Amino acid sequence: MNEFKTTYPDNNYTVHVGHEIFNEVMERYTSEYNDVFYIVDETVYANFKDGQLHGIEDPILIDSGESSKSFDSFINLTERLLEKGIKRSSLIVVIGGGAAGDAGGFASAVTLRGVDFIQVPTTILAHDSAIGGKTAINSVHGKNLIGAFHRPVGVVYDLEFLNTLPKSEILSGYGEVFKHALLNSEDAVHKLMRQTSEGLSIEAIEESIIDGIKTKMKYVSQDEFESGSRKFLNLGHTLGHAIEYRYKIPHGHAIILGLYAMMYISNETAESNIFDLQKFHEYFSVLEYPVGLLSEMDIDEMIGLMRHDKKNTRNEAIGFVLVNESFSPYFTELNINALENYLSGIKESI
Amino acid sequence: MNEFKTTYPDNNYTVHVGHEIFNEVMERYTSEYNDVFYIVDETVYANFKDGQLHGIEDPILIDSGESSKSFDSFINLTERLLEKGIKRSSLIVVIGGGAAGDAGGFASAVTLRGVDFIQVPTTILAHDSAIGGKTAINSVHGKNLIGAFHRPVGVVYDLEFLNTLPKSEILSGYGEVFKHALLNSEDAVHKLMRQTSEGLSIEAIEESIIDGIKTKMKYVSQDEFESGSRKFLNLGHTLGHAIEYRYKIPHGHAIILGLYAMMYISNETAESNIFDLQKFHEYFSVLEYPVGLLSEMDIDEMIGLMRHDKKNTRNEAIGFVLVNESFSPYFTELNINALENYLSGIKESI
Repeated sequence: MNEFKTTYPDNNYTVHVGHEIFNEVMERYTSEYNDVFYIVDETVYANFKDGQLHGIEDPILIDSGESSKSFDSFINLTERLLEKGIKRSSLIVVIGGGAAGDAGGFASAVTLRGVDFIQVPTTILAHDSAIGGKTAINSVHGKNLIGAFHRPVGVVYDLEFLNTLPKSEILSGYGEVFKHALLNSEDAVHKLMRQTSEGLSIEAIEESIIDGIKTKMKYVSQDEFESGSRKFLNLGHTLGHAIEYRYKIPHGHAIILGLYAMMYISNETAESNIFDLQKFHEYFSVLEYPVGLLSEMDIDEMIGLMRHDKKNTRNEAIGFVLVNESFSPYFTELNINALENYLSGIKESI
Repeated sequence: MNEFKTTYPDNNYTVHVGHEIFNEVMERYTSEYNDVFYIVDETVYANFKDGQLHGIEDPILIDSGESSKSFDSFINLTERLLEKGIKRSSLIVVIGGGAAGDAGGFASAVTLRGVDFIQVPTTILAHDSAIGGKTAINSVHGKNLIGAFHRPVGVVYDLEFLNTLPKSEILSGYGEVFKHALLNSEDAVHKLMRQTSEGLSIEAIEESIIDGIKTKMKYVSQDEFESGSRKFLNLGHTLGHAIEYRYKIPHGHAIILGLYAMMYISNETAESNIFDLQKFHEYFSVLEYPVGLLSEMDIDEMIGLMRHDKKNTRNEAIGFVLVNESFSPYFTELNINALENYLSGIKESI
């Protein structure tokens, strides 16, 4: 088992990663609390109730996917916790994919003004979202617009949960793994592309998932509330979120498209080309990401959605994370005219 | 104008108190933000839109009273803020009584995971709730069960807003003023009783309101997240909340009844009597608090409600703040049997 600790000034927590570690690690945490309440993604519960999750009694089941992040689902979840008699001194354990983690985390953040909780991510995508204390639900105006920063007391990432993931989930999860490699180094990207040259599999990317956890932890420990370097984790997300919202494709698929756009804009703003666009276009297409969608996008619509992004603080420009010639991320603001030209160029490049 | 600063280790804010200070002080804050969004209690807006609030354009109006703290109202409020294009760099100004402050504060805490906000309390009661960063809405299981700690960037308490308060609001507001005097000293209580011997009026209690603000600030700066001395602010609230919930009487009325019960129990648990119960019974009755309700309460029902209080962490006992022989508050846990006896004694004492 790998164990990584955050490096905040205080209140640090550990991320435990390994195979079949769930019961052993959970025992360490739950023994310190009088009451433990489980919030479990219903699909995960169905798959593992006779396996890893066999000891869990009377869990609160929540929808798999984004519907768990609606206001209605949030109200239902908090009222269920209160009905069951949750106290400030209780522990909540949230088991599921990224959506369950976000929704369960937000319920933990605001029920009784905050109850301790543990994230148990069960997908590849959630290796990312479970770390860093961001929790949220969705607004009719966009994803994750209502939420809170609430650190978990621990993250338990049992890789056995990944065994039942459908192919689309692996594809989506790989989006953030690829982003973390881009944030790490050019070598990390090349290594990952080699490892996946025969296609995506959990085995092929397991090492990179763990590297991604370390990358994520580095950034969130440096800048918990996203006033500086944590913004780099937004690589590919500015356009990615707009695409996800507009085309209703999985998060990671949209992020890959956003990363392609980021590569295009990074090339345009640099002295010399940083990314071989042709190569990445081909690589993403072979993996079956819907890269062709980029040629369909309505530029005004995309810009309107990006303006609404909660990370955007001005109307006349949109914040973007790009990669420079030394392969380091940097934050910049692109004015609307420039962005229109870039998006138009991206459409033509597909 | 009085200006008091919190004494947290960092991110301190100022509480401004005085007559007709709203426009002058607000100007200082709003000039530092690109966008300002106003959330205003509809009754306050109706009373002051041609006066103190005359410069405010397009406010988001919310219900006066507890209905602003429902889930529906919360959803509506956050969606309105997002619809208007709020950004992380915006400022929210919440103007109104305690309920508006709680609801607007909670919306500020979770919209975009937290936006800066200013509390502008317009009632006596809100002199208390506006300070300390507690925000919340209500659950079907009880008051303030869903919320967040979110410090305002400033509190602007313009005493002119108090001029239109109906008598019941003054009576309710006085509950927390009286509690703060109890937390300060026996002398403070006697002084307050003398000042109000001719009845309650804003003029009579203005000085004590300001003393109360200082008391509140001392406790919240010492212990923001209520792991220690902040609990003392709960004086009178354990039973008070149960009474408020059950009998639907104003918060401060219920707190006065809770304080009477606290005095009874403090006497019972001390070596010698601390409070002259007869005197306080008479004083509260003359001021027209519904002290007689205490003789009607159903003991089991009250205990059931107190068990559900979010500050309560155990089932077999209930945490209470009492006052000792040196007139200092202390925290204790009363087991259910003992509490039944005390409540029964209180009923008989009325």
